[in-house]
Amino acid sequence: MTSSVENRAAAFREYVKKMTSFGQALAVLHWDMRTQAPRKGMDARSEVIGVLSGEQFKLATSKEMEEHLEALSEPAVLDSLDHITRATVLECKKEFDRNKKIPADRYQEFVVLTSQAETIWEEARANSDFAMFRPYLEKIVDFQLEFIDYWGCDGKNKYNTLLDLYEPGVTVDQLDPIFATLREKTVKLVAAIAESPHKPDTSFLKKHFPESEQDAFSRYVLEKIGYDFQAGRMDRSVHPFCTSFNPGDVRITTRFDPNDFNSALFSCIHEAGHAMYEQNINPELLGTPLCEGTSMGIHESQSRYWENMIGRSLPFWQHFYGDLLKAFPVQFAGVDVEQFYRAINEVTPSFIRTEADELTYNLHVMIRYEIEKGLINQTIKVADLPAIWNDKMKEYLGIVPANDKEGVLQDVHWAGGSFGYFPTYSLGNVYAAQFTHVMRKELSGYDELVAKGEFGPIRQWLKERIHQHGKTKSPNELVKEITGEGINASYLMDYLESKYTYIYKL
Amino acid sequence: MTSSVENRAAAFREYVKKMTSFGQALAVLHWDMRTQAPRKGMDARSEVIGVLSGEQFKLATSKEMEEHLEALSEPAVLDSLDHITRATVLECKKEFDRNKKIPADRYQEFVVLTSQAETIWEEARANSDFAMFRPYLEKIVDFQLEFIDYWGCDGKNKYNTLLDLYEPGVTVDQLDPIFATLREKTVKLVAAIAESPHKPDTSFLKKHFPESEQDAFSRYVLEKIGYDFQAGRMDRSVHPFCTSFNPGDVRITTRFDPNDFNSALFSCIHEAGHAMYEQNINPELLGTPLCEGTSMGIHESQSRYWENMIGRSLPFWQHFYGDLLKAFPVQFAGVDVEQFYRAINEVTPSFIRTEADELTYNLHVMIRYEIEKGLINQTIKVADLPAIWNDKMKEYLGIVPANDKEGVLQDVHWAGGSFGYFPTYSLGNVYAAQFTHVMRKELSGYDELVAKGEFGPIRQWLKERIHQHGKTKSPNELVKEITGEGINASYLMDYLESKYTYIYKL
Ligand SMILES: [Zn+2]
Ligand SMILES: [Zn+2]
Repeated sequence: MTSSVENRAAAFREYVKKMTSFGQALAVLHWDMRTQAPRKGMDARSEVIGVLSGEQFKLATSKEMEEHLEALSEPAVLDSLDHITRATVLECKKEFDRNKKIPADRYQEFVVLTSQAETIWEEARANSDFAMFRPYLEKIVDFQLEFIDYWGCDGKNKYNTLLDLYEPGVTVDQLDPIFATLREKTVKLVAAIAESPHKPDTSFLKKHFPESEQDAFSRYVLEKIGYDFQAGRMDRSVHPFCTSFNPGDVRITTRFDPNDFNSALFSCIHEAGHAMYEQNINPELLGTPLCEGTSMGIHESQSRYWENMIGRSLPFWQHFYGDLLKAFPVQFAGVDVEQFYRAINEVTPSFIRTEADELTYNLHVMIRYEIEKGLINQTIKVADLPAIWNDKMKEYLGIVPANDKEGVLQDVHWAGGSFGYFPTYSLGNVYAAQFTHVMRKELSGYDELVAKGEFGPIRQWLKERIHQHGKTKSPNELVKEITGEGINASYLMDYLESKYTYIYKL
Repeated sequence: MTSSVENRAAAFREYVKKMTSFGQALAVLHWDMRTQAPRKGMDARSEVIGVLSGEQFKLATSKEMEEHLEALSEPAVLDSLDHITRATVLECKKEFDRNKKIPADRYQEFVVLTSQAETIWEEARANSDFAMFRPYLEKIVDFQLEFIDYWGCDGKNKYNTLLDLYEPGVTVDQLDPIFATLREKTVKLVAAIAESPHKPDTSFLKKHFPESEQDAFSRYVLEKIGYDFQAGRMDRSVHPFCTSFNPGDVRITTRFDPNDFNSALFSCIHEAGHAMYEQNINPELLGTPLCEGTSMGIHESQSRYWENMIGRSLPFWQHFYGDLLKAFPVQFAGVDVEQFYRAINEVTPSFIRTEADELTYNLHVMIRYEIEKGLINQTIKVADLPAIWNDKMKEYLGIVPANDKEGVLQDVHWAGGSFGYFPTYSLGNVYAAQFTHVMRKELSGYDELVAKGEFGPIRQWLKERIHQHGKTKSPNELVKEITGEGINASYLMDYLESKYTYIYKL
């Protein structure tokens, strides 16, 4: 590396560090707003967030950034950089190009539109009034098409350009066979379960569970599985989330329903799964845009691995059931671990994605994937969405929502302009099953480790293979390196078939 | 106003708003760090704070700021501005000049020095080892003298330049007679109290008061006196403080000692006094540097007014004593309101300023004032501080600390490079007594209002006369407008003499 390249690289890293400092500050401001901030300070807070976001955007798209990127992305120069700086250049360049290709006024109009659309969507959903939301959604879809024109497309499928925003490098060519597998096998499995006479009793999950006791038990479990409270904290918010300021400060939130054991604990484990990913990122990546999970799908693989494949497994509860009985002796009196395990894994087709069980969840996601692909490839019209939605619900889940509130209007994603996000939820499940398959081969006595509450080797495995790399490896790279093959839904289906065959005695 | 001035003023206001947004964000980051943040995230957080502070400093001292200030501070232009913009220009100019007059490298050295000095001071204090701290303090004093050279001085007293940092416009010429009055009358009063046989029984204040119950009672009292929890919140921290992000979000913190009733409640009321000031600032000042209390002294007048003149008054407890007995029936069994009132107003000479009672507190401040004035006017040497300190303690309080930990090393202020700050504590008491004197004349049945728990008229008075103005009026202006006279310590002494004559039956 020449000394002029060295100077340039050092200046670039310093510049990027400043930019990421804005990101960290903004994350704190958002977290505070969602967990703590008093009502009367909200407007002023939003303005502060607006100012800092604006400054951050300026840094990401400035002349100075452009000069750094031009100088450092010359192939010979790029090759001479250390791998963190190189990946930082590529990441910043991708972001820079994306931002620069959209005319500023069009992007501004889009921001205004989605902000209005979110408000209208709330009202439309409350009134089950799709017609009210429809013109906004049409404009938002038009904007997606316009953005794809600006950004360009790989010539195979326009939707790939949007997928790349959330799951870099993953394409429709990969997703179609995945969802085909999920569709075929899941629909059959759900049908078999529906016919099983061995339905779990879930009544004891709906007893009274005081919030403070749920809170204490959740914290106990999170400590045991390895969420580091010295590098995070857990607070309350309306919707649970995880946010990372830096690997030493990754916070999660939760909410408690005193009449439902099934919600908070698993949501806490889910968010802790996200958080452990961020806590374990190589601290050398701090100050670069690489210090975060590599994609939505890989992130979701970590949360769902802990929530479902660990947290809803029998060995897990063989370990924790004694503690659970100590915490809630009255509520679970006369219930054994087997009954409890079956109850927390009940499968029932339902209307709302966010409340769906582990198995039917992928069908909810599939409906959205198929619709998004159709909208972006202009084979589906926004006007037809309610009918299409209900048809697909009927076909995959066997039920039809009574209104659009429980149907096509249930998610905020489209109102917010997010297309390409939904499939990452199922990808998370698919990845998690693939990773678990490898882990089972590499960690001897895997089930026994879980049953003994010895999560250290599992955490270590996840950290080494996935977490530490942050955004330096793409989802496809990670999957290939870890599993030796491509993205493959059959591991997930094997796992689900085996799990539910046992539970429902199929 | 010409249209070019109008454009310039608008651009300036926009620029200043951006600058204050950084200030608000930084305040959130600091608050979070002191109340919430996990240990392992501290280093990264400090870096983010460093980056944002740097950006804020750049905005305050930029070429662009200079051009705005040059254009807008021309006398004719300045006169044509609305009063908020005018005051903003003057405030920014003062800050700009202060920052620009110190060579950047010297300021950087000072920052490094005080950062080291704070660390050394902690160790020196722990070991009661003044010699260890002495060379740092000597350098810090030298820096103060150097800064005064850069900033200039009013030709009367160098210390005035430092006073102006904390209490703009207030001078040694004003403070000397104030402290002379305080000294003469307080020393006599303390002596009389020492000889009184009517010592209050305070044993019941040291019973066990569970934290959660203290917390609930404190919140109850704060609601009643008018701290707006919709525009703030109360959290725990090692040292209590108040911080304002905007008038709709002014937070306070506290800590609870389960074995001392006398600490948390009054500290909560104190911080709420600060907070109500900030909550009541005219919201039009948001986005300018005027949206804060006008000085440390005026701020302290509000906290001490609520803490001492209201919170430690007999009418206040005539109102709240029933509630107190309900909250702590066992602890205060057999104690009547009169006994309680006397107990919370016990006077005892002691070594530590922050633990001093309402009366002796001013003597602690006076010692520091006299020493600072001497150091800055070079009539006192750092080397002699321990001896001087102990002599003054002996003279004013009649006691001598056994070591420097309980003496000259007790406060962090000097290590942090703050000179001119201490006198504002006593100014707060002086102002508060002057304001109360006027309030008593203007609000009929003042004591009855307090005894009925009707704090609305008092809050309204404080808001109209003081709070709403934020930093648009200087301390001297406020005092003159409200009281019709200058700063005058005799009201404070009248109040204290009357209060303690009653309590100690002098
Ligand atoms: Zn998730
Ligand atoms: Zn104070």
